[in-house]
Amino acid sequence: MKFARFKHNLTGTEAAAFVTEEGLHVIQGDIFGSWTEAGAIFPFSEVTLLPPLRPNSIIGIGANYIAAGQTRPARLPEIPLFFHKPISSLNGPNDEILIPRGLDKLNFECELAVVIGKQGKYIPVEKAQEHIFGYTIANDVSAVQLTHPGGHWMLVKSGDTFTPLGPYIETELDPYRLTIQSKLNSELKQNSPTERIIYPIAGIISYLSQLLTLQPGDVILTGTPEGAGEMRAGDTIECSIAGIGSLSNRVIQSLS
Amino acid sequence: MKFARFKHNLTGTEAAAFVTEEGLHVIQGDIFGSWTEAGAIFPFSEVTLLPPLRPNSIIGIGANYIAAGQTRPARLPEIPLFFHKPISSLNGPNDEILIPRGLDKLNFECELAVVIGKQGKYIPVEKAQEHIFGYTIANDVSAVQLTHPGGHWMLVKSGDTFTPLGPYIETELDPYRLTIQSKLNSELKQNSPTERIIYPIAGIISYLSQLLTLQPGDVILTGTPEGAGEMRAGDTIECSIAGIGSLSNRVIQSLS
Repeated sequence: MKFARFKHNLTGTEAAAFVTEEGLHVIQGDIFGSWTEAGAIFPFSEVTLLPPLRPNSIIGIGANYIAAGQTRPARLPEIPLFFHKPISSLNGPNDEILIPRGLDKLNFECELAVVIGKQGKYIPVEKAQEHIFGYTIANDVSAVQLTHPGGHWMLVKSGDTFTPLGPYIETELDPYRLTIQSKLNSELKQNSPTERIIYPIAGIISYLSQLLTLQPGDVILTGTPEGAGEMRAGDTIECSIAGIGSLSNRVIQSLS
Repeated sequence: MKFARFKHNLTGTEAAAFVTEEGLHVIQGDIFGSWTEAGAIFPFSEVTLLPPLRPNSIIGIGANYIAAGQTRPARLPEIPLFFHKPISSLNGPNDEILIPRGLDKLNFECELAVVIGKQGKYIPVEKAQEHIFGYTIANDVSAVQLTHPGGHWMLVKSGDTFTPLGPYIETELDPYRLTIQSKLNSELKQNSPTERIIYPIAGIISYLSQLLTLQPGDVILTGTPEGAGEMRAGDTIECSIAGIGSLSNRVIQSLS
C-alpha cells in the first residue's frame, strides 16, 4: 500500500491519503496506528504532494554503499557514520531546493529511506523488520563546503529544503531488490541496486536502538550509491526508485 | 520571569507554568505567543519538574569556551562546530541519566542553553537578541567512546536521557554575567564565567539562520566550559547557574 500527504490546490486543505490509480483516498487517523477511509478521493491533477509523513526525526548514514565491481568490506564498521538532519530541512517531492546565500552549488544524494512504524529500544537484528512501516525516497542534499575541519557534517546536512522526501511510503517492498536512480537535467547520474548497501537496514535499526528509542515517524536515510554529485541553480534533480516513485526538485538560489 | 513545565505528583497532569516563590502558576496557551494565567497555583512539593519546554530542535556547539587564563582566539572559527541532539534525548531536571548497555561511563558537560522564541532566517547579528526568548541550563551528556573515526558525534550526543534541561527558562538575564558550575557528587568540577564563551550567542544565532530557519522552541546549547568530565553509575551530577537554578541527575546503568 502507498501512503501520501497532499495539499489540495484549490482549498489548501492538507490531508493524509492512500494512493491507487484512481487518486488519493483521504484517510483519518494515524497511519502508524488506526485509521479509516474518510470517503473523499482526489485526482492527482488537483493536488500538490507533500512529504508523505511529518517525520519525528530524520537520521542519515554515510559511506554505506559499495560501487559497482567493489567487494563488500570483510567487516561492518564498528561505529557507523550516522548523522541527524533537522525536521526544518524537510522538503516536498516536487518543491524547490534552495542554495543558501553565500554558496553557489549543493550536492545531491538519492537514497532509499526507511520509515519506522513502531517504537523500540534495544531491538535485536532479527526483530528489526517489525519496526519498519515502509519505504520512501530521500534526496540527502548536502553543502559539502560547510564540512567542519574536525569532520562534523551538521551544517552540511541541515539547510532548509535539504531533505526532499516522498512521493509515497510504500509498505510492501523488498528493500534489497530495488534500483536507486538519479538524473540531473535528465542525465543519468546514479544507478545502483540497493543490494550494494554495506550496513544492512536491520543492522542500522538495531544499532541505533541500542542508544536511542526509535519512534513511529522516524525516517532513516540508508546511504547514497556512487554517482552523487553537484547541482547548481537552474538544475532539476530527479531521484527515482521503481515501486515507490520519483522526487523531482528544481534548484534555485535563495535570495531571502 | 521564570517558565517551567511540571507533572502533578498525584493527578499526573502535565502543565506549563510561571514560577514565583509561591509556587507554579499554571498557564494556558503558548509561552512563545499568547498565554493566560489559568488560576491554579501548585506548591513545589506537589510536582515533579519536567524539561521547561517541548523543544522543536536541540542544537549544540562544541569547543566554544576558553579556559581560565587563556586568551580568546584572534578570529572566530570560519565553520563553527555545530551538532544536533535528537528530541528523544531530552531529560528532566531531576531524572536519571542512563548509561546505555555496553558502556560503563558517560561525560557530563554543563552549559547555558538559549531558547529561541521567534522564527527567523538570515538573522543579522544585531537583530539576534529579538529571537531569544530566554535561557535555561543543559547537561550535554556525551558518550565520547562512540566518536566516529571520521569525527562525527551523532552517536556521542544522541542517547536517551542525554539532554537534561531546565529547571526553568529565565527570560530576564544577561547571559554574559553568569557562572556555570557543575558538581559531581558535591565536588566542584566546572566553575566558569560565561564571558569565556568564544562564539558569541548572537553570532551563533545569526550563523545558524544563514542555513536553517530558527523556530520558536529551538534550544541552542552554547558550549561547555573547562572541567567537564566522566561520570559513572551511582554518581549524581549537578549543573547550576545562579539566576536560573540547578539540574541534579543521578546516573544509572541501563539494563533494558
